[in-house]
This record gives sequence, C-alpha cells and structure tokens, in this order.
Amino acid sequence: MKFAHEYADAHFDRFQEQMYELLRIRSVSTSPERSEDVRQAAAWLADDMRRIGLHDVEVIPTGGHPIVYGEWLGAGADAPTVLIYGHYDVQPAALEDGWHSDPFEPVERSGRIFARGSSDDKGQVVAQLKAAESLLAGGGSPVNLKFLIEGEEESGSIHLGDFVRANTERLKADVCLISDSGMPTEDQPSIIYALRGMVVIELEVYGPSNDLHSGSYGGAVHNPLQALAEIIAQLHAPDGRVAIPGFYNDVLPLSEAERAELHQTAWTEDAWRQVTGAPASWGEADYAIHERIGARPTLEINGMAGGFFEIGMKSVLPAKAWAKISCRLVANQDHEKIGQLVRDFVLDITPPTVRSMVRVLLGSSPAFVDIQTPAMQAAIAAYKRGWGKRPIFMREGGSIPVVADFQKELHLPVILMGFTLNNDSAHGPNEHFGVEMFRKGIHTTMYFYEELARRELR
Amino acid sequence: MKFAHEYADAHFDRFQEQMYELLRIRSVSTSPERSEDVRQAAAWLADDMRRIGLHDVEVIPTGGHPIVYGEWLGAGADAPTVLIYGHYDVQPAALEDGWHSDPFEPVERSGRIFARGSSDDKGQVVAQLKAAESLLAGGGSPVNLKFLIEGEEESGSIHLGDFVRANTERLKADVCLISDSGMPTEDQPSIIYALRGMVVIELEVYGPSNDLHSGSYGGAVHNPLQALAEIIAQLHAPDGRVAIPGFYNDVLPLSEAERAELHQTAWTEDAWRQVTGAPASWGEADYAIHERIGARPTLEINGMAGGFFEIGMKSVLPAKAWAKISCRLVANQDHEKIGQLVRDFVLDITPPTVRSMVRVLLGSSPAFVDIQTPAMQAAIAAYKRGWGKRPIFMREGGSIPVVADFQKELHLPVILMGFTLNNDSAHGPNEHFGVEMFRKGIHTTMYFYEELARRELR
Repeated sequence: MKFAHEYADAHFDRFQEQMYELLRIRSVSTSPERSEDVRQAAAWLADDMRRIGLHDVEVIPTGGHPIVYGEWLGAGADAPTVLIYGHYDVQPAALEDGWHSDPFEPVERSGRIFARGSSDDKGQVVAQLKAAESLLAGGGSPVNLKFLIEGEEESGSIHLGDFVRANTERLKADVCLISDSGMPTEDQPSIIYALRGMVVIELEVYGPSNDLHSGSYGGAVHNPLQALAEIIAQLHAPDGRVAIPGFYNDVLPLSEAERAELHQTAWTEDAWRQVTGAPASWGEADYAIHERIGARPTLEINGMAGGFFEIGMKSVLPAKAWAKISCRLVANQDHEKIGQLVRDFVLDITPPTVRSMVRVLLGSSPAFVDIQTPAMQAAIAAYKRGWGKRPIFMREGGSIPVVADFQKELHLPVILMGFTLNNDSAHGPNEHFGVEMFRKGIHTTMYFYEELARRELR
Repeated sequence: MKFAHEYADAHFDRFQEQMYELLRIRSVSTSPERSEDVRQAAAWLADDMRRIGLHDVEVIPTGGHPIVYGEWLGAGADAPTVLIYGHYDVQPAALEDGWHSDPFEPVERSGRIFARGSSDDKGQVVAQLKAAESLLAGGGSPVNLKFLIEGEEESGSIHLGDFVRANTERLKADVCLISDSGMPTEDQPSIIYALRGMVVIELEVYGPSNDLHSGSYGGAVHNPLQALAEIIAQLHAPDGRVAIPGFYNDVLPLSEAERAELHQTAWTEDAWRQVTGAPASWGEADYAIHERIGARPTLEINGMAGGFFEIGMKSVLPAKAWAKISCRLVANQDHEKIGQLVRDFVLDITPPTVRSMVRVLLGSSPAFVDIQTPAMQAAIAAYKRGWGKRPIFMREGGSIPVVADFQKELHLPVILMGFTLNNDSAHGPNEHFGVEMFRKGIHTTMYFYEELARRELR
C-alpha cells in the first residue's frame, strides 16, 4: 500500500492534467445539442479505464446517454467488492452567468480548480479512477472494483434504474461507494446519510391564442404572466410551508436525538447570509436552516419566462408564460404521488380565464442510509487516516437519484464519501474543487479499500 | 381633385411596392442593435418626401432616433395648414413568435399585406405620403402640409416632446392629422377621441449573490422567482382592479351619456373570446369589455424571466428575477405620479428576504379630444365620402404619446383618422393591413383636405 500512496503523489500533476482533459468536454446532459460532447466524455472515461488496467471496459448505450463500465476483480472471490458510482455529465454553464473564466477551460487559482464539473462530479470521478490506478500500478487493490459511471445524473438518471435492474448479477458487490457530495469545511470531513429525492415539473399557462397589443387588449384579457405569478404565489403559505394539500403527509418526522446530532452543523443566520449573499434566511418557521435543507421537502422555481424580456420594451400581452418547478423530497415521500399532488393543485387553482398545462418530467426517490454497518465503520476509519479527523454525519439537500435504486435493487450499503466543499458552487457559476481535496480524496479512497478488506462485510 | 384621385388609382401598385420597401427595413426603435436600420428608414422617408415634391425636407437628429420633417406650403397663407404626424419605427418581431412568414418581408395574402409595421404605422404613413403625392402631381393640395414623422413612438416618443416645444413656430398649423389607429370592421369607420397614456417600469428582484444549487440551498433561501411572483400577484385584487393604493384617484368617471355612446361598439363575451382566443374575458367586474380597454387604466406584465428557461432543466435557485411592467393611463391620470405609486407599493410589499429594484423607464400622458370642432366635421364628411358611412366615435386602449404634446404645446385640434382594423395584430405576430384599406385611406385623406379647405377653422 505504501507504493500506491507514493505513486499517487509522484503522478499527482498528471492526474490533475487528466482531470482537466475531462473538464474541457462540455458534457451537459440536459442540452440536446451537447449529446456529441456527452459521448466524448464517455469515450474519454473508457480510454482512461483501459489505460489504468480495468477489464471488460464498455461504453453501454441506453435510451439516452451511455453508461461507462469497467472492473478489476483481481482481489479474488473472498475479498470484498466495491461498486463505485459517479457521473460524467454536468449542469449547463455559460460565461455570462457570472463565471470569472470560461467554465469549460479549467484554471487553478488560490489552490482551487475552477470549471463546470470540477466538484460535481468529474473531479471526484477522476479521484476514484486515480486511486484505482495507483493501487493497480503497485500490483493490485485489496478489494475488487466495479466502476459504473453514468451520463444522466443531472437529468434525473432516467435510464440508470432500468440498467441496474437488468444487471444485478454484473453489479453484484458488498458495498457501493459514491463521491458526489461535499463537507462543511476543508478540515471537517462528513458522511451523508440522507439525500433528497426530486420531482421535476413544467408548468405552462396559456391565455390568448396570439401575442396581443397590451394597449388594445390589456385590461380585458387575463395576462398569462400575471396568471402564472398568481398560481406560483399560491404554492407557498406565508409561513414558508408548501401550501399544496397533502404535501407533507408522508414525511418522516425528525426525532429529538437526530435533531441534536444534526445541530452540530447548524448555520447561524449571519453565516448563512454570508454564504448565500441573501439579505435574510427564509423558509419553514418551525425548522432550523440546516433542517429546512436536509430534512424537509421543498418546492422551488428553477426558471420562469414569458413575453418580452430582452433589452428594450415591447407592449405585448403574451399568449403564454411558463415555469420550471422542482420539488426536493425526503423519506418517505413518493415522487409520483407528489408530482400528482402538484399537478392537481395547479389545475385546481387555475382560474377559468387561462389554461394551465402541467407536465411531470421526471422523479427520483429520497434515500436514507443505515449508519451502523461495518462498511460505514471502514469509511470512518479511512477519513480519520486521510483527514486526521472523525467525520460527522449529515443530511444532504441535493439528490443522487440512483442511491435508492442501489439500496432497493442490489441490497447494498451505500457510502457517501464526498471530497468537495458544500460551498464549492456546484450548479452555480465558478464551481471549483480544491487541489488538496482532490489529493486527499485519492488517498482516503485507498484507505477505505484497505479498511474494508480488514472487516467482515458479508 | 379628380386628377389626384385618378392618379392615386393609376399608381396604386407602385405605392404598394414603395410601402414594401419601407416595411423591409427593420426599424425596431427599442433594440439598440437596430439603430442603423432605424436610420435607414428615416433616410427612405426623406428621399420619398423629396421625390413627391415636399420642401425643406430634413432628417433631424435627436438624443435618440431622428425625426423626419418635410413641408409643402403652396396652398397659401389663407388656406389651412395640416400637421401630419406618424412614426416609422416598429415593435420587435421574430419569426418564432408565431409569424407565418418573415415579419420583415411583406407578402400579400387574401387582400392583406402581412409585415411588421404594415398597420402600425408605416403603412398608414405611406398612405399619407401617397395622398400628398397624388395631390401635388395634379398641381397642388387645397391645404398646406407639414409632415412630422418620428422614429421613437414604440419607445415612448422620449425626444419628440422637447422637439415640439423647441419648434412651435415651424410646426404652426390649424389641425393635426394622425393615422395610427384602427376601426372596428372594414366598413365601419371610426374616429378616436381618447387615448391612453402609459408608464413603463422595470422590476428586478435580487436574492442570493450568485445562482445556487436548488438542492443544497433550496428551502432556506427565498427564491427570487417565487418572490417576484408573490409581488406581481399582489398588484391586482381578485376582482380585477389594480390593488395599488391611489391608482384610480384621478380617473375621470364615465358619464351615463358617454357609456351609452360607447355601447355601440360593445363586445359580446363570445366575440371577445373569438378575437382574443382566450378562454374567457377578464378584468374589472364593474365595467364592460370595451370600457376596460378604452376608459379604464390597467397594469400589465409585458415580460418576466429568471433562472433557467431553455429546453432541459437546471437545478438552480437563481440570484435574480425580473419583470417588465406597463400601466395604461386614462384622463386625468399623471404618469409620473402613477410611476411613483407603483414604485412605492412594490418596495413596500417586498419582503425582507429579497431586494427589489424598481426603475420607471418612461411615461406619456393620456389624451382626450374635443369632438365638436370644425376640423372634426371635416373628418366626418371625409369618411362619409371615402367609406360611404358616418364614422362612430371610440376610445382607444393604445397610446400615442405625442397627442397630449400637440394639444398642450401647439394648441391644435388633433384628428385621429385610422385606416387599419382593430384586430390587425399590431404588436403581435402576423400584423397586417388590408390593401383596400390602404387605397381608401389615400382617397379619404384627400377628401379630408378638401373638406378642411371649405370650412372656417381659425
């Protein structure tokens, strides 16, 4: 194992350069015009898997973007097998969103690598690959490795569930490792034990059949922009709760013990203002900031548009207005049920002067992880060695749709070891990943495998 | 006069072709990148004015887009002088807004000319020029003519008021003629006696300092899109009234006599649904549809945007959301006062969790015209000859900002003789102007001059 760690340090600059190669590929899975870039990112990963010595490397087509699979089973049948999941697709990014440099041309400033995907999730996927490379270069890994890297995480992992169900034998393992989350500060590692699910909804409000002159028609036609605003304003109660009847019915209540545990990572109002830049916090009055994010479901407007919104003005009463809405869900909410509740409520409150069209685009289940397993003890030990500190347990506001599938279909304990920071601006402008975090991530992954091999997992 | 009418018919195809030349120029005054096109449209007009025999033709620079001026004073000091106002700028237009053909490549279908500006107002400006050409080709006009054609009507005529105030001697006339409105049906001419004023407002709502991941932050940050919707939803009461305190304070109430007169052009709910395509009419419950448009002020959302609104999805909690709002005003509302009321109300209802920025961009006064003047009798007589029918009097929901200036600064009776149809889709896709309306407009303008010359105007 000593050789592997020395190898990682000796080849670290090249590892970083290889991460840059992957970051330069604009693999935005939600943009139809980027599908060729997504394909290129998959090809890059398959090439790297072959280069580092994985076997049976394959770019597997799906109904959408491909899955990249590769494995190394040299540790033998008695050794544990780890299924490593990550994703090579990224959120959209454009310079004009406030980036200080091209989001697809990685650059290092003050020890941080700035690029779309640096933290979510290409940088972490490369850390996993380079941990494997370092071990295999030294003769082998103490555990068997199965890499499953998908290209649709940012668009709801719509084809991964079917793939997992159809490949339970191939994906058979003892533990699943996912590095797609962050920690509170650089020297406080954390392990995520709860993830929010999601349901994505498009709402369109239609009024007149064509755009109309706002002078000649205004005052006697219900403006779809106004109607959309009136509908959206009714989705929350004044106290911050989602106002849709039944929305909270299936939410697991927080126990007092869990609230106390989570209180370790509580935000102060001041710190929250600082990290968000918002003038004040907002949300459900009965819950603390960290609870609103990790333990409570939300309804968020991700986009809204209609009429004329370029520079200048246009006296238009538009035919249509639209919004993109997503709900984050917590255990034990069901995404299909929630999608239906939102749809029914919106149609119910739509006045007869306009027409609403509600489309539920995709959904994923929330996940909840058992923190008492031997694999979790191995993860704690690995963090102690890699970071010199015991990790804390946290709930994550974001979603990794496939976690629930791994639990349900493969019956695997899922370990969420994330190596980035919570405020690394994933999904926003100037996303970044610390160079030292990348390095520690590689070493900690190797410690994790070593700790797993020492324990009785089956 | 007989020669002039024959000349107009003989050259009618060329007149239409010349209108097409002007329609092809993309003179969108609100788009900064179109200013060269706007300049070209001004140059085209000046060329045509010279061609038809006007004198002292000039393209006059302003702080924005130029004014085109030309005159013919050959009728002599004893004859009446008509100041003809129009505009050569147009609203924005794009094929993807629902046009059946390129908005800047005019095409005739079923006797209608389809193009942006065909009815509002290039087509009508060309009708005025071609009436003058026909008269001058026959030896002269019975009245003196002063053409004042501006390039900023669609952006609030912001520089015209100053020009009028600085040129009262040059613009001295006995009557002002404006063809920038429509009639209810092809065979029912109308004269507008009231126009709405306008105030244009931009509202921006700011939340976090950067776009955030809606999973990692959602639920504890007030989403600016949601906050914008909540603010906009409060601008109207459930009964359709504008909910801003004091908004209706200065509105002249409708008399019973005026209501009875206007009732001639009342819309049925069915007809309104047909012309708008909206599922039902909307607005102030105490007023009929035609009253809501012509006699009542409104607050309209012309555009709204924020977050991610392209194809696909992005889990973003955006830093900012914005809306473009305009109020249409009726006599005796003051646009500065209303702009201030809207601003104060929005800031007042903005919650402490976000910040609002309200900018009043521009404003214009409503106008009310005396219908008892000799010039108005001449207009009635002209319509009877041109259309074979007495015109009805109507209120117009749209705005022509300069009318109030002509009344106040030049003390002129303003005659609003419009030759297009109310449902010609001005400002919307597939704007059009009937070929026969264009022809009758040219003849009726000549009748109007003849009728004016017969009357004692001073």
